[in-house]
Amino acid sequence: MSTAQTSTQAPPYSLARPCRMEDVPQWDIETDVVVIGFGAAGSCAAIEARQAGAEVHVFEVAAAGGGSAWWSGGEVYVGGSGGTHVQKAHGFEDSTEDLYTYLMMAGGPGADAERVRLYAENAVAHFNWLERQGVPFKGTYLPGKWLEPMTDDTLLWSGNEQAWPFSEKAKPAPRGHTAQFKGMGGGKILMEKLCAQAEAVGAVAHFNSRAIGLIENSKHAIVGVVVRIDGAEKFVRARKGVVLSAGGFIINREMVARFAPEALACTQVCSGGNDDGSGIRMGIGAGGAAIHMDQFFATVPFFPPESLVKGIFVNARGERFINEDAYHGRVGHYVLRQPEGKVWLLVDNEIFGRPMIEPNIKVAAVGETWDEVEKELGLPEGSLVHTVTEFNRHAAEGEDPLLHKAATWLRPLTEAPFAALSYCTADLNAVAFTMGGLHTLPSGEVLDADGQPIPGLFAAGRTACGLPRWGEGYSSGLSIGDSTFFGREAGRKAAQG
Amino acid sequence: MSTAQTSTQAPPYSLARPCRMEDVPQWDIETDVVVIGFGAAGSCAAIEARQAGAEVHVFEVAAAGGGSAWWSGGEVYVGGSGGTHVQKAHGFEDSTEDLYTYLMMAGGPGADAERVRLYAENAVAHFNWLERQGVPFKGTYLPGKWLEPMTDDTLLWSGNEQAWPFSEKAKPAPRGHTAQFKGMGGGKILMEKLCAQAEAVGAVAHFNSRAIGLIENSKHAIVGVVVRIDGAEKFVRARKGVVLSAGGFIINREMVARFAPEALACTQVCSGGNDDGSGIRMGIGAGGAAIHMDQFFATVPFFPPESLVKGIFVNARGERFINEDAYHGRVGHYVLRQPEGKVWLLVDNEIFGRPMIEPNIKVAAVGETWDEVEKELGLPEGSLVHTVTEFNRHAAEGEDPLLHKAATWLRPLTEAPFAALSYCTADLNAVAFTMGGLHTLPSGEVLDADGQPIPGLFAAGRTACGLPRWGEGYSSGLSIGDSTFFGREAGRKAAQG
Repeated sequence: MSTAQTSTQAPPYSLARPCRMEDVPQWDIETDVVVIGFGAAGSCAAIEARQAGAEVHVFEVAAAGGGSAWWSGGEVYVGGSGGTHVQKAHGFEDSTEDLYTYLMMAGGPGADAERVRLYAENAVAHFNWLERQGVPFKGTYLPGKWLEPMTDDTLLWSGNEQAWPFSEKAKPAPRGHTAQFKGMGGGKILMEKLCAQAEAVGAVAHFNSRAIGLIENSKHAIVGVVVRIDGAEKFVRARKGVVLSAGGFIINREMVARFAPEALACTQVCSGGNDDGSGIRMGIGAGGAAIHMDQFFATVPFFPPESLVKGIFVNARGERFINEDAYHGRVGHYVLRQPEGKVWLLVDNEIFGRPMIEPNIKVAAVGETWDEVEKELGLPEGSLVHTVTEFNRHAAEGEDPLLHKAATWLRPLTEAPFAALSYCTADLNAVAFTMGGLHTLPSGEVLDADGQPIPGLFAAGRTACGLPRWGEGYSSGLSIGDSTFFGREAGRKAAQG
Repeated sequence: MSTAQTSTQAPPYSLARPCRMEDVPQWDIETDVVVIGFGAAGSCAAIEARQAGAEVHVFEVAAAGGGSAWWSGGEVYVGGSGGTHVQKAHGFEDSTEDLYTYLMMAGGPGADAERVRLYAENAVAHFNWLERQGVPFKGTYLPGKWLEPMTDDTLLWSGNEQAWPFSEKAKPAPRGHTAQFKGMGGGKILMEKLCAQAEAVGAVAHFNSRAIGLIENSKHAIVGVVVRIDGAEKFVRARKGVVLSAGGFIINREMVARFAPEALACTQVCSGGNDDGSGIRMGIGAGGAAIHMDQFFATVPFFPPESLVKGIFVNARGERFINEDAYHGRVGHYVLRQPEGKVWLLVDNEIFGRPMIEPNIKVAAVGETWDEVEKELGLPEGSLVHTVTEFNRHAAEGEDPLLHKAATWLRPLTEAPFAALSYCTADLNAVAFTMGGLHTLPSGEVLDADGQPIPGLFAAGRTACGLPRWGEGYSSGLSIGDSTFFGREAGRKAAQG
């Protein structure tokens, strides 16, 4: 058919509107697999695709590889199959079923059983693979509750394993395996190794190279990508597939406002600076469905010192709302949703401390009695006193019938003076990254709105919606565990063409 | 460019993958504007497009028009501009700013200020327009709290207007305007009139006609639609635009599981039977972005009798969590998210009654004292007794410092025997429809992932994400108010081509 509407001047294309193959002037680069983004998912996709025999070109917008994982703690959430050799060395047995059950709970109402099953069964093998790529895991164990190790230890409790209700359904084990590095920031070690390995096996990495549009053929299959390098558009043919591994969208505030407006309450971002949603936008433009775009990681890092975990959070009703020994990201989500944005952490003299990450935290009230604190906070008469009295009464017996905090963290708050640390919205510095992304099969194949794969298009890492898809269920190491594992899957599948 | 991947055999197309114009064998029907779905949004789009001079064809999958609105209460949420003539006749003044403020709160964190502004300023004119189309509004006022009128009255309180925190920010007014009909179900009157009017002004309606794919040109503009009629595919050219007004996706359980898994907890649907997400899937396939796909209406219709509003909801901690005088859909969302799925409505002998919609509700506990009820429910010792004691103490003074229930509904629960009605997940029959949909401008133009309009593509009603986009903020009449108002906008804009 031909009408006025089909005039053939060069069509515009954009991240959100693919370029049609007829409009490609020439192929500047031809390869089997194109990987967009050289972070945790992209590096692993490149390694696997290359090792499967494919020619691989990686395009990275930054001047160097690493992505947002470079800035992270470099923690990988793995276990199952009886335990990694690190878990076993420290006496932790970890069955595949316990890991599966935990990850299904962590995925929340939208958990993907097929994806979780594949991961639970192969996480130990994946950990071994990471070691073979040269990622160092020292193999020592760090007990206690931490955000990230401050030492160079590499096995820690990094989620809700020991907290209700998770602990009731799945036998707990520490599963956070951190790349060896002294202090916070092991991600740089992890990513240096993975990027180096990708190049060592022959993937060609292009830096300062911005993907600006996918290329589709007449069947809506993806056959390449347009990339801007040194100010010029290059048309790159991907004979077998394009892997979108360009991160999430937390730094794109317009996208956050549109897709995950509740995350706007978080003033800090977990990002290497390029989580601008470009991968997700390209996928949507190609007809991909995005899922759980409202979900995000949000942490309120109220400890260490871990003594603060023995405090109790209360809201504007003077009531508790979460077992404070839950993972800090779970606590963060509960903090964010309290009425009127009012939340305080109550502590007594013995456990008082300033949170390492927020040493200048506002002390909203101090008193010699809880009644004084209640009045100073302007809470309903008797509300806070009742809450603390009941908490203390049960804590003295090692019980928390209301919120099921574990006995380890139960201690009556009876040593005056008492204080309330402000976690009210205005005083919060919550940290966020996005969890929503393209709907994919565990193989990385991007699905359209009918659940059918879009030929030639793959996604992994935070460009896809992976294991982390429920803010309340996140555990440290889940995003990098997911990105590296399913990045590998996507690379392998893409290489098959 | 030409490669093996561009072989030209007839391409497949589907709801989620548009047909390319080159692959259209012939135009079976040619018109200016195509409207897909003949419900509240589609009928209004058809009327406006036709009256703007466009030739209009409507394709409806059912054997008759009406859509899901036909099965509804036929309520339209309007006000502002000083009040509709009905509001004014009953002494209710309603400023545009109050309506605007209320609707912004109702839209939640993702509220669309531009859309809300347009609606708030023009809702009275829209109400008058509906009357001119022949929709009868009797003009009488029904005080009290209802799900829908059981009489043929037509003005009622239908949202959170009088409930905290809405009542603190926006001066309340009743804004539910219901098509005149005795009993529940005024939607059929509304839709009979609107569909009849669309045909009367010259829109051509095709029934038993299923849209199976959009048609796009080489610029990714939408130029038509493929429709299946009597088993045969018909290619329909839309010279000016296609309006997707095919409802939401609540009956498509696979889509619900994928996009709004929390809605799976609702066993009942608000739907005429064709909310299968086809409109949304077509839009996503054309590169449209879908937003707030996780959001849904969920009601737990625990009244009438309205005496039950004087009861108090408690959770597994024996604590209240919502002002019970809030809109039943807001209450429903709070009920659904309580820990362990355990919720009970506590009543005393004076206010006891069986909910009209759920007369066989399970009475989980009965006692001569609240202590007995607490024990029978297995709640933490003293928790429920404390909650009721404090509630009673304040209610006797007409106050509710914890949850701000309005004085009208405050009364101590002191007349034995006492009972707990079960709203635990296992006993719930919550009713749901979906609120997420295509991202559009107020004009109905569907936006891609970069926020740019897709030429030729429009959406309205639950196929778009409109005024209703936050489950906690819904008010009866908001969906039909939105669908009819923004259906008109889309029809007018589409007619401009």
